[in-house]
Amino acid sequence: MEDVNLDDTSRRKNAVAAYVLDNKMDNSSKDIPLYPTEIRKCESICIFGTGDFGRSFGSKMLQCGYNVVYGSRNPHASNLTPKGAKVLSHEEAIKESSIIILAIHREHYDFLEQLNSQLEGKVLVDVSNNLKMNQFENSNAEYLASLVTGAKVVKAFNTISAWALQSGTLDASRQVFVCGNDVKSKDVVMDIARAIGLTPLDQGSLLSANEIENYPLQLFPMWRLPMYICTGFTILIFLYCALTEVIYPFATSNENTLYLVAISIPNRVFPIVSLILLALVYLPGIIAAFLQLYRGTKYSRFPDWLDKWMLCRKQLGLVALAYAFLHAIYTFVIPIRYYVRWWSDQYTIKQVTTPIAFSSHYAWLSDSYVALGMLGFFFYILLGITSLPSVSNAVNWREFRFVQSKLGYLTLVLCTAHTLVYGGDRFIYGPFYKWFLPPAFVVSLIIPCSVLVLKFITIIPCLDSRITKIRQGWERNAKS
Amino acid sequence: MEDVNLDDTSRRKNAVAAYVLDNKMDNSSKDIPLYPTEIRKCESICIFGTGDFGRSFGSKMLQCGYNVVYGSRNPHASNLTPKGAKVLSHEEAIKESSIIILAIHREHYDFLEQLNSQLEGKVLVDVSNNLKMNQFENSNAEYLASLVTGAKVVKAFNTISAWALQSGTLDASRQVFVCGNDVKSKDVVMDIARAIGLTPLDQGSLLSANEIENYPLQLFPMWRLPMYICTGFTILIFLYCALTEVIYPFATSNENTLYLVAISIPNRVFPIVSLILLALVYLPGIIAAFLQLYRGTKYSRFPDWLDKWMLCRKQLGLVALAYAFLHAIYTFVIPIRYYVRWWSDQYTIKQVTTPIAFSSHYAWLSDSYVALGMLGFFFYILLGITSLPSVSNAVNWREFRFVQSKLGYLTLVLCTAHTLVYGGDRFIYGPFYKWFLPPAFVVSLIIPCSVLVLKFITIIPCLDSRITKIRQGWERNAKS
Amino acid sequence: MEDVNLDDTSRRKNAVAAYVLDNKMDNSSKDIPLYPTEIRKCESICIFGTGDFGRSFGSKMLQCGYNVVYGSRNPHASNLTPKGAKVLSHEEAIKESSIIILAIHREHYDFLEQLNSQLEGKVLVDVSNNLKMNQFENSNAEYLASLVTGAKVVKAFNTISAWALQSGTLDASRQVFVCGNDVKSKDVVMDIARAIGLTPLDQGSLLSANEIENYPLQLFPMWRLPMYICTGFTILIFLYCALTEVIYPFATSNENTLYLVAISIPNRVFPIVSLILLALVYLPGIIAAFLQLYRGTKYSRFPDWLDKWMLCRKQLGLVALAYAFLHAIYTFVIPIRYYVRWWSDQYTIKQVTTPIAFSSHYAWLSDSYVALGMLGFFFYILLGITSLPSVSNAVNWREFRFVQSKLGYLTLVLCTAHTLVYGGDRFIYGPFYKWFLPPAFVVSLIIPCSVLVLKFITIIPCLDSRITKIRQGWERNAKS
Repeated sequence: MEDVNLDDTSRRKNAVAAYVLDNKMDNSSKDIPLYPTEIRKCESICIFGTGDFGRSFGSKMLQCGYNVVYGSRNPHASNLTPKGAKVLSHEEAIKESSIIILAIHREHYDFLEQLNSQLEGKVLVDVSNNLKMNQFENSNAEYLASLVTGAKVVKAFNTISAWALQSGTLDASRQVFVCGNDVKSKDVVMDIARAIGLTPLDQGSLLSANEIENYPLQLFPMWRLPMYICTGFTILIFLYCALTEVIYPFATSNENTLYLVAISIPNRVFPIVSLILLALVYLPGIIAAFLQLYRGTKYSRFPDWLDKWMLCRKQLGLVALAYAFLHAIYTFVIPIRYYVRWWSDQYTIKQVTTPIAFSSHYAWLSDSYVALGMLGFFFYILLGITSLPSVSNAVNWREFRFVQSKLGYLTLVLCTAHTLVYGGDRFIYGPFYKWFLPPAFVVSLIIPCSVLVLKFITIIPCLDSRITKIRQGWERNAKS
Repeated sequence: MEDVNLDDTSRRKNAVAAYVLDNKMDNSSKDIPLYPTEIRKCESICIFGTGDFGRSFGSKMLQCGYNVVYGSRNPHASNLTPKGAKVLSHEEAIKESSIIILAIHREHYDFLEQLNSQLEGKVLVDVSNNLKMNQFENSNAEYLASLVTGAKVVKAFNTISAWALQSGTLDASRQVFVCGNDVKSKDVVMDIARAIGLTPLDQGSLLSANEIENYPLQLFPMWRLPMYICTGFTILIFLYCALTEVIYPFATSNENTLYLVAISIPNRVFPIVSLILLALVYLPGIIAAFLQLYRGTKYSRFPDWLDKWMLCRKQLGLVALAYAFLHAIYTFVIPIRYYVRWWSDQYTIKQVTTPIAFSSHYAWLSDSYVALGMLGFFFYILLGITSLPSVSNAVNWREFRFVQSKLGYLTLVLCTAHTLVYGGDRFIYGPFYKWFLPPAFVVSLIIPCSVLVLKFITIIPCLDSRITKIRQGWERNAKS
Repeated sequence: MEDVNLDDTSRRKNAVAAYVLDNKMDNSSKDIPLYPTEIRKCESICIFGTGDFGRSFGSKMLQCGYNVVYGSRNPHASNLTPKGAKVLSHEEAIKESSIIILAIHREHYDFLEQLNSQLEGKVLVDVSNNLKMNQFENSNAEYLASLVTGAKVVKAFNTISAWALQSGTLDASRQVFVCGNDVKSKDVVMDIARAIGLTPLDQGSLLSANEIENYPLQLFPMWRLPMYICTGFTILIFLYCALTEVIYPFATSNENTLYLVAISIPNRVFPIVSLILLALVYLPGIIAAFLQLYRGTKYSRFPDWLDKWMLCRKQLGLVALAYAFLHAIYTFVIPIRYYVRWWSDQYTIKQVTTPIAFSSHYAWLSDSYVALGMLGFFFYILLGITSLPSVSNAVNWREFRFVQSKLGYLTLVLCTAHTLVYGGDRFIYGPFYKWFLPPAFVVSLIIPCSVLVLKFITIIPCLDSRITKIRQGWERNAKS
């Protein structure tokens, strides 16, 4: 599962080794069919730097029919370059091509200052990455542009790994973010990206370089806020449950129920947090609607926290799904747990002497809350599947909105009903209120029920028509 | 889960707000790096209309280095246009560009008639959508072409939402359907689509405009037939089970078993409908084979109902999988239901006084039908995973056919065997035939068993070789 | 589930029939909007061969605005060609276009030798496939190039099926592998591929033709090795379990426990093989690290077996996940099995007379091994989801490596701990050692524990820093 792709490119025989490793080019390029020299594309590419990336990139370019020339400080010492490529000094190499790929570290950029005149008008592609986010004051590409003022600097390829280029397996993104101040140069670079099977994306001027350089250093930035929210609620609910189910019996009757923390308490925390997170997915949309109603216009920005909240709704929903999944499997194993089996045995044995009548009421209650929960889980899974990029990419907007909004609310209603019916008559049953604290599931219902009530208010015809009007561009205070 | 994509584009800081909302451009475009004026692409784009789509589109075009000129009735009143764009009168704006994006409603097209001479030879891109399918007699694009006879009308971008363009999150389709009578104009428009990261698809002449305009209004058209079939069978089987399990005991012994409708009866309906639907996936292929055998040629069209049936096989299969999934989870929770626990307790208590011997036969029967069901479910899931667009896109035709045909039939065989073994000796056991009706699972086996028998006939060597010959183009009555 | 795609293209009304079938073009092309003759693209395409592929391809080209000319031996006899296409003799057809699509079988190539002079300088596209892998000594395309020495032969489109072209449903790969010795000709062919909505991929010179021709005949080549490994372990562990749980009780106490082979023994085999396979996913990375440490350089090739092993890690992991999934569902159904219910009843009945006290220790043990197993399963599923092409394509390298390496090891640790705690005090409990054989789960722990220990060694700071240095290009024996 680690690094080789289902993708067909991985089948090719030149796919090489592990991603942590890069073998010598002159070994691995053996079986790559190169063009006979006479039929090469006229276009030449010059690469500065014979490190892993420089070599992989050059090898790939050769495969695609380009002439490749390496620029090196010691042209004769470089024996790592792929077969078919020339190695020249920096000055000579520049003359051979109008495009120079700069596969060297930022620290070694200074020597380019001396080549300023030769680089005049050339396309200089910065592929470098940093080790930390915002490591330097300005981006590598902007720094390069300030050094070599005559060249047209383009930032590109920094998200592509040497190993991916070499082995043909592109598990992670195939997208090449391109930015630069000169449009023609960007076009040239984007064509090269397309030629080697990558997807270029124009990101605007060199001002975007910083962002592009930070990109490969990001670790799930969109998931951070949802993870914090989720962790916060998880700890809170866990402590609440531990208080009422472990500390309370220990304090009041010296009973040791610590073994509940392995499954019983988690299986209370998972559904509660899942339900709260699912409600939080739909809350910002409702807040936005009320805000628009209050302001009487859609043409004013939302507060920043609301924007951020709205942007992480998908992630919130997926975390909620993960917890719902855990709740489901933790529930399926209930009957095989020793603890459950022992207590159920005692209950059975008790009935040998004092029979308990079958209660149709309880049969209804138990079956309906289980059924509601499973239907909720089913729609949860459905929502998750339609969130997969390749699935959501195959539906149109109307369908996407139908699934995520209509089915989403249906899921929320089912899961809230599941919890309400689970509560049943326990809501008012005294013994469940330990130290006057309501059981955890009562607490968990506050947000979902509020969301459903508020949503219900927004679909009251008079409010609904007003919101629709506002969203179509109508303004209360508009004059023109 | 609602509207923000896993996709990396969503990480960018200019991703804005909720999809239901569009903020003022002059706010949100603040942090989009625009080109300094001198380095813009020479190409200019003219946009008529400063509504949500016009503004989002213009903003995106500016980002990609185009000159953007808005045509407006009141050029001075428009303060909603993105920074960097010019706003002129319609007549002046036309002069600035050879491409005009028409981001206005069909009702306001008439004013273009007066501009007919200025629009001569220009590319006029119709991005409009209607509110209902086939709302007008002819498509908006064709209507436009009839108004402005000199311009080259191209239909495009109507499937793309303003919000998607603005926020960079493209959850739903990135595909741009393009049609038009002039090939060069279409090429220009397709290039623009590519420039902003979308995937253009040539749909032929302007005759396709109607279809393209209907597309974003569709709500899962391919799922309609399977959903009808599925709903029909679900209601039918549900009523059948309710008759034998709720009404029968009530009528004959006044026993109230209404609580069975929550889980017990659904868990009978789900597997039965799932099995029938799975069989229906494979039935049309067999009918087609027999039809070809009978006709002695593949070169004659199938009846319409067969064509339609064949086209919805994937959807039928996925609905069958959904029901199989529901059956699985409804089965996993059996032991935690009050109803089941109570009866199992009674059974245990009875054994205290009258021990029941262990039956190796029942252990075999119970274990095998459960094992068959789970293996069937496993292959069901496997089929479902290979139906995901991104997975099926990574296999070649031989592999795809292997999975969907070989593994599909294996699943059908396993699930049919699961039902047969579940039936066990109950097929002939009198008390199960209430009011002379066979138990539901007996009814459910009719279609799957027929499909398997028919399939078995088609793979008899003499028939199989004949079908293969026919499918390779051989004709019984061919003369040439 | 068989052949129709979620994809929007499938919605179009010209999607036709079943993939096993190709109807006559003059029927199905009725509703495809064609260009009026005067607005066609100037470019003409010549197609030799009016078989299924030739007709589908021509029809698609017509839709996209190309002129299509068929070359045929009997131009007047061909009534199967799509409407709008001309049918001429081979000689005349060649004159009309600079591109000839050769949709005929290799056996019929010889007649082209006579057309050698007319074909001089033309682009000749070979779309043929063979029936077996490496059927001929040289590839069809190379054979063609040797016959028609003056033409520029390009291999392409052989992975695309006629049915897919015709119906618009492209369930299997949309990728067109293109190879050829002339770069310009390849560019022309790649443009055609793009025009009909396919994704061309340059595969280098004509030397790659053999590989490209073998591609559609492959049947999951990357899955072969993992399947062999998995089958081997499955049989081995199955026999081992059968020996200790079926043959042993039969031999020693004449007890018939054969019914265990349906669920009990598989549910022992699945988790054991799953755990071993998961460990095998991470073992090659560790071996590679030690090899690099020993050699003191990363610049030397790994042995072939290690390379192959590394390339199938993803598949190994997915098979491990499949087995883990089977283990999970086989575990969920435990309480509904007759065998389990009977024994648990006996146990309950025994307690009526001789009560057994609740053991907090067992409650802990049982709950923790179940909890560890479920958490392990949860992360397993997470790894599986991130292996989906569309998901792994949406993350950057750092994120991909984080998930597959960090989460992967976490899964391995959880699953190993699950097995260890499951073992509990049974490791040293005599009766479990039948015929001096340790229980199967003890055997299963050997590889996972070794992998974890070795991994632990490599992250000891002094070794870890050395490995990092080597992977950054440092060499122990380097001089320069």
